[in-house]
Amino acid sequence: MDSKHQAGLQFPVQIRFDDIDSYGHVNNVTFLTYLQDARVQLIHRSLGSAAGAGAAEEDTFHDLVGKDNFALVGRHEIEYLQPLNFRPVPVYVNIWVTSVGKSSFEFGYAVAEQDGAKIYAQATSGMVLMNKATDKPIELTQAQHHALQEWSGAPVEFRRRPKPRNA
Amino acid sequence: MDSKHQAGLQFPVQIRFDDIDSYGHVNNVTFLTYLQDARVQLIHRSLGSAAGAGAAEEDTFHDLVGKDNFALVGRHEIEYLQPLNFRPVPVYVNIWVTSVGKSSFEFGYAVAEQDGAKIYAQATSGMVLMNKATDKPIELTQAQHHALQEWSGAPVEFRRRPKPRNA
Amino acid sequence: MDSKHQAGLQFPVQIRFDDIDSYGHVNNVTFLTYLQDARVQLIHRSLGSAAGAGAAEEDTFHDLVGKDNFALVGRHEIEYLQPLNFRPVPVYVNIWVTSVGKSSFEFGYAVAEQDGAKIYAQATSGMVLMNKATDKPIELTQAQHHALQEWSGAPVEFRRRPKPRNA
Amino acid sequence: MDSKHQAGLQFPVQIRFDDIDSYGHVNNVTFLTYLQDARVQLIHRSLGSAAGAGAAEEDTFHDLVGKDNFALVGRHEIEYLQPLNFRPVPVYVNIWVTSVGKSSFEFGYAVAEQDGAKIYAQATSGMVLMNKATDKPIELTQAQHHALQEWSGAPVEFRRRPKPRNA
Repeated sequence: MDSKHQAGLQFPVQIRFDDIDSYGHVNNVTFLTYLQDARVQLIHRSLGSAAGAGAAEEDTFHDLVGKDNFALVGRHEIEYLQPLNFRPVPVYVNIWVTSVGKSSFEFGYAVAEQDGAKIYAQATSGMVLMNKATDKPIELTQAQHHALQEWSGAPVEFRRRPKPRNA
Repeated sequence: MDSKHQAGLQFPVQIRFDDIDSYGHVNNVTFLTYLQDARVQLIHRSLGSAAGAGAAEEDTFHDLVGKDNFALVGRHEIEYLQPLNFRPVPVYVNIWVTSVGKSSFEFGYAVAEQDGAKIYAQATSGMVLMNKATDKPIELTQAQHHALQEWSGAPVEFRRRPKPRNA
Repeated sequence: MDSKHQAGLQFPVQIRFDDIDSYGHVNNVTFLTYLQDARVQLIHRSLGSAAGAGAAEEDTFHDLVGKDNFALVGRHEIEYLQPLNFRPVPVYVNIWVTSVGKSSFEFGYAVAEQDGAKIYAQATSGMVLMNKATDKPIELTQAQHHALQEWSGAPVEFRRRPKPRNA
Repeated sequence: MDSKHQAGLQFPVQIRFDDIDSYGHVNNVTFLTYLQDARVQLIHRSLGSAAGAGAAEEDTFHDLVGKDNFALVGRHEIEYLQPLNFRPVPVYVNIWVTSVGKSSFEFGYAVAEQDGAKIYAQATSGMVLMNKATDKPIELTQAQHHALQEWSGAPVEFRRRPKPRNA
């Protein structure tokens, strides 16, 4: 893969017939579904070596978030690099963390072949840790911060992003 | 509505039960489906007053693109401002054009109440006019350019976009 | 319309670009989504003249079911009569009740043009009223029974149902 | 598994977060998507031992249908036996053929655990082989008939089917 992210967190996604639109490709919206599933799978798997102080290896990030809080999707940015066709073998979503703030963090993704030889789309999602009762952001705990840092990789280098306009 | 875009191109979207995820809100991915439908509806309606030289009022932008070319979705950027719940009455997608280049253009959107009193999400989509035979970008015609200019409005002022990193 | 059901309970459905599959028609699975939305809309509208003893006109069937119970989808049967293409104007789902039992009832549907001139699909759904705490069927109340009877129409005459095999 | 069908044709299905509805289970409509994917996978895999006279082992049923014809979904019947929750491990769709006619055939399905210990739903789909040019049914070839017979299993014994009404 031509980017510098860690390839370790990689989830296969089965392409469904229903993912294909009338142009014959995986619809652009469906890619966001793939990202969502990678996110859900990452959050529900055991932390393993990403467990820091205050967390056990068998804990998941979902456990660390707990029942009183939730991780809100604040934004997405995605660009499409190659059309993806239906096929019986899965496509892969690489997911990593591109930045961690006080109460927010960002996922980076590449929807790609398993070996990274071809990238179909790359994306980021801005996440905010929220408290359910107050509906306001709360600070990441040390254990959460640790896990996110363990998953961290390079920023996504978008190629199609419009140039900033002069103010 | 607090943004400066023209509200004229506004399409209602019926919320489906299936749009609601296990958190009880319209799923973040589903918003992109709403944008897609606004785009499809805009492209398939008669140009009317947006028809310039080389186009008739009853033509659609889809007609102007023609059978040899297609408008490719190059990228999306979306941010979520308020949760959207299921309801029997439609939500509205405002769609306009934020910029026009040689062979590319950008849509801006707000998913909002009809009167703009509440905005649930705002977004942009980078589009590229492509030739089917060569699979390469081609220049927008004068008539296409004219229509896009007629639909033009203010850039989307994203509030959640991460600050650019220093190189 | 060639069937004998009451046309009164009719809900428009916006066709989405995403409903169209790679064959260029509304995908067969998507029709079930349309039925689901008709069902949800019927259940959440005011009973009006379907309100019997123990119910107010502004109550919905959802209100009559209450928070302790829910209506379970036990089965669906659907047959496809005509392909349905994308179009900006809605298609219509007619929904009525074909039978009412002790704790179960059946919806009948026709996905059709508003005037019934063309039927794209017809279907039934077997529903069971369930108690959340016991997860067992409970009997319909008199008010529920009354509303369902008010919505009753003819059985769906399936044309493609396989003949029963000899035992 | 308590039914008599052959378990050989079994396809795993990844459950997506998006499959879960606001009740917290896989939505009833989504099961039809699972059936569709099993069908697509069966039709696109090599016939292997199901290849008869006029077909090679590496041919697929899709190859046998050819470009001039297509297999139309005429009807579905499905019943729900157990709620299915989100989980990272796949659920399995067993698919087989319950009957073969002149130009039509029927698939049977069970959405179940891999070992058949738990069945979430069972279903049938009536299929018709159609000619694209005439849009009329055409007869199954000998090779198609052979493959379908190789995949044949017991009829689906629906438990929730309404009793036939007296005429």
